[in-house]
Parts: sequence; C-alpha cells; structure tokens
Amino acid sequence: MADLWQNAMDHAVSAARHAGEVVREALRDDRKQTVMTKSSSVDLVTQTDQKVEKLIIQSVKEKFPTHSFIGEESVSAGEPLLLTDAPTWIIDPIDGTTNFVHTFPFIAVSIGFSVNKQMEFGVVYSCLEDKMYTARRGRGAFCNGEPLQVSHQEDINQSIIAAEFGSTRDAETVDKIFISLRRVLSLPVHGIRGAGTAAINMCLVASGCVEAYYEIGIHVWDVAAGSLIVSEAGGVLLDTDGGPADLMSRRIVAANRRIIAERLVKEIETFSPIRDDAAPANQ
Amino acid sequence: MADLWQNAMDHAVSAARHAGEVVREALRDDRKQTVMTKSSSVDLVTQTDQKVEKLIIQSVKEKFPTHSFIGEESVSAGEPLLLTDAPTWIIDPIDGTTNFVHTFPFIAVSIGFSVNKQMEFGVVYSCLEDKMYTARRGRGAFCNGEPLQVSHQEDINQSIIAAEFGSTRDAETVDKIFISLRRVLSLPVHGIRGAGTAAINMCLVASGCVEAYYEIGIHVWDVAAGSLIVSEAGGVLLDTDGGPADLMSRRIVAANRRIIAERLVKEIETFSPIRDDAAPANQ
Repeated sequence: MADLWQNAMDHAVSAARHAGEVVREALRDDRKQTVMTKSSSVDLVTQTDQKVEKLIIQSVKEKFPTHSFIGEESVSAGEPLLLTDAPTWIIDPIDGTTNFVHTFPFIAVSIGFSVNKQMEFGVVYSCLEDKMYTARRGRGAFCNGEPLQVSHQEDINQSIIAAEFGSTRDAETVDKIFISLRRVLSLPVHGIRGAGTAAINMCLVASGCVEAYYEIGIHVWDVAAGSLIVSEAGGVLLDTDGGPADLMSRRIVAANRRIIAERLVKEIETFSPIRDDAAPANQ
Repeated sequence: MADLWQNAMDHAVSAARHAGEVVREALRDDRKQTVMTKSSSVDLVTQTDQKVEKLIIQSVKEKFPTHSFIGEESVSAGEPLLLTDAPTWIIDPIDGTTNFVHTFPFIAVSIGFSVNKQMEFGVVYSCLEDKMYTARRGRGAFCNGEPLQVSHQEDINQSIIAAEFGSTRDAETVDKIFISLRRVLSLPVHGIRGAGTAAINMCLVASGCVEAYYEIGIHVWDVAAGSLIVSEAGGVLLDTDGGPADLMSRRIVAANRRIIAERLVKEIETFSPIRDDAAPANQ
C-alpha cells in the first residue's frame, strides 16, 4: 500500500514541471497572450491554459489509462464535473491566468489526486519562481524538497491574511467581499496580501509566509492540491461558514492554526456560489 | 558630466546587494524577527531595518563624505527630513518590513540619489527574488541588466492595478482607501494586486507586470528610487490629486501611460497626510 500512488505522484511532478516550461516559453515567445473571457469580462483564459491542460491529461492517460479527470478547461468546455471514488486527477493548468496574461510573477500549475474522494497527493508548481510544492497524505509537505511548516503565530493581530477580490464584479458580490476585507483589516491584522492565485496563496500558508487565506468563488481545481499541502504542513482547512472544508463548496479558509481559522470565519460575510458539483442544468 | 555620478551609482548597487545579503542572513538565522512598532500597532520595524540603514549610510559616508542622507530609520529616530540641493541619498533599508517579519517574498532595499532635488539614479534590490532594478536619469531602467519597459496597454479595463491597504487603521482613512479600491475594481479592471512594498510595486509598473500603482501614505524613501525606475522605463508619475508627482506629498500614482494614470486619478478618493517636509513640530 505504501507506494501505491508514488508512480502517479512522480508523474504529476514531472508533468507540472513540463507544463511550467510551456508557460515560461509562452511568455518568452510573446509576452502579449491572446486572451478570451469566460464567466465575466475579467475571467480570462488563453490558448496556453487549454494547451497545458491537454498536455497534462494526455500524458496521464498514456500512463494511467483507467484514471479520471477534472480539469478547469475541460469543464469550461462542457465536460461534466464529477468526483467519484475512482483515482481522479484534479487539474488547473494555469492558476492565475490574469497574472499570466500580465506576466505578474505568481503563476501556478496545480495537480491534485484523489482516491475515494480523499486527496492522496498535491503538486503546485509556481513556474516563474521555480518552486515545486508537493505533499502526500501522511508524509508532509515540501517546497523544492525542503519540508514546509505553517507559521506558529496564534494571535490574529500579528498575522498576514491572504485574500482576493476575485473575478466577479456584480455589486452584491463585491459588497460582500469588501465587507469581509474591511472587517479583517480592522481587527487589525499586520496586512492583507493576495498572490492572485488560490494555489499559491495556499502554498504561502503552508510556507508560513501568511497565517491564513480565505476566498469565496474558487473552484475545486484551484484548491485540491493546495488543500493537502496546507494540511500536511500542519495547517487547518474550514469552510467560510465555519463548517468542515468542502472542496466542492467554492469556499475555503486555510490557516496555520484552528484558532486563527475560527477567528477569521467570524469576520467573513459568507455567501453561496453555485456548487461545483451542482447538476449541470443549474450551472 | 556624463560619468559624474557613476561611481555613486556603482556604490549604491553594491551597498544594496550587501544589504540584501544581510536581510537574507537574518531570515536564515531566525525566521522570527524581534518586532517593534512605530506609528501604529501594524507599522513595524526590526533591528535589521536599523542595522541595514546604518551599514549603507556608513559605507557611503566613507566614500562620499560630503553627501547628505534621508533614511527611514534615521528620520524615525528623530533626525530632520530635509531635501536640499546637495547630493542626497534617500534610503529605505527594508521596504516591506511587514513582509520581512513574515518572510513574504517581496522585500526591497531602496536607494535613491538626488542632486538639485532631481533624482539622478535609483536602485531597488528585491532581495528574495534576487532582482536588482536600476535606473539612471536619461539612460533607461534595467532589471539584472535587462532593459525594462512599461506595459503598452492603454485600456484601463484590461489592466492590473497595484494598490495597498497601508498601515493606518483609523476608520476615516480606511474608509477612503476602500472607496478608492472599490471604484477601481468596479471600472472594472482585470485585477488588483499589491506586493506589500511601494518600491517593488513601482518596479512591477516599470516591468510591465501591472499597468499602474497608486498609494497615499507612502514616504519619500519608499518611492524616490522607484520613481526614476518607472519614468526611465517609459512610465509616468502623478500626484493622486492629478497634479505633478511630488515626492514629499506622501501620494503617488505611477503608470505605464498618462491615459491610464489620469483615468485612475478620477477613481481615487484623495486625502492629505502630513507632508514629509512639514516642519518637525507638526510631524
């Protein structure tokens, strides 16, 4: 049992590194990407997102033909989003597409792997920083091979919180995002930061660079890999409503300590985007 | 005349690199810094800030004994802030002290050099990224020797804007900061980011990674070097009130294009912190 998924994880690391090379090449060849939009005028996608996802899925299919996939761009193209008990690769080819379009330095390839609906490993490759974050269930989290540990801080007033404005611009959602941000800032905290990618925000929690990260509106592919990296680095995950984390709920709190996560939850004006596993007709 | 200040600039680069080594060593030796506070409970300073500033000033004094200084920590310790026509080194030993305390990856040493109240060169060393940004008046801006150029984007709706929450937490100031942020986000823009250091935010404008950056509450040492890096990369600087940039006004808009800067100014709820060059009694 011990090495059951080691081959798959080795493949994920090598696929993420290769994907990162493709991302860096795309930026070298032409810093100006051709940009398309998805759910809103600021929800961006490029041909590189689609190309990288296809590359990863194709390489996995050759090696592990019976495995399943949930990929951001495949789902956007109409494939169903279904997490079963089967070994499932949960892929965000470029987390931080807006950063990619602007060459802002946080761009991640995120690959999570779930069996029986439990994350077995997570790989997040921050391609411009050349940082390979990895975690395997029960075996710790690492960055470029060095063990990761969350911050020891237990006082939220001495904390940095990672948060995002998101890509929704309707007034009601923006209202709620700003209410939460303002409450968190006024606790007060040392600061609020945001990398512009959920996967890297979670790796920043795992690395101890920020005490916590929260966001509403993310998708399962944004946080699947990162969630295991956080928990294997000693962190905790919650839903923004204070309940247990649910990768399909579109809501996440990742923190170094339960006391920080629970304090943060009190300040968050939570709301309920359509779940990732809602029936397609409702999506 | 051509090489009049080249020696000084070479010294600034080498002093910034040495300062960066001290910063990295401090993080290696003990990731938990001893933190003191200044203007508020979230305005932080460490012994490393003070040590690095002393190191830089001492090394400059040995080589250029007639030059003047404006250093963040010297001013905090009570020295007057006076910009004269004399050759003046304007130093922020660690821009992004909060990041430094948390090991958040953006930490800069910023050294600007002014003669006759005009910036002659600027050096910003992003120590954890190992990026040395330099600019000399009339000779362009560079990162690790590669020429920098601002983004060509002229549509603010296709832009990323860098902004900060700052270290003031009084309700009136926070109100104004949030009003501006919300207006900017709702233009809409592609996104809002913030490195947590003014110097690096300005280098991100110069690098074309963000179209613009604005902030109210910064000090002359945060933006002296960065302002020349932005303008030498082809960017423009304004005050947040739309007037010409004034390094003592505590307000800055740095943008790739005048059209972006002017559009941004319309959304900013400006206010007037006590100027850096106000009489000490008022500070």
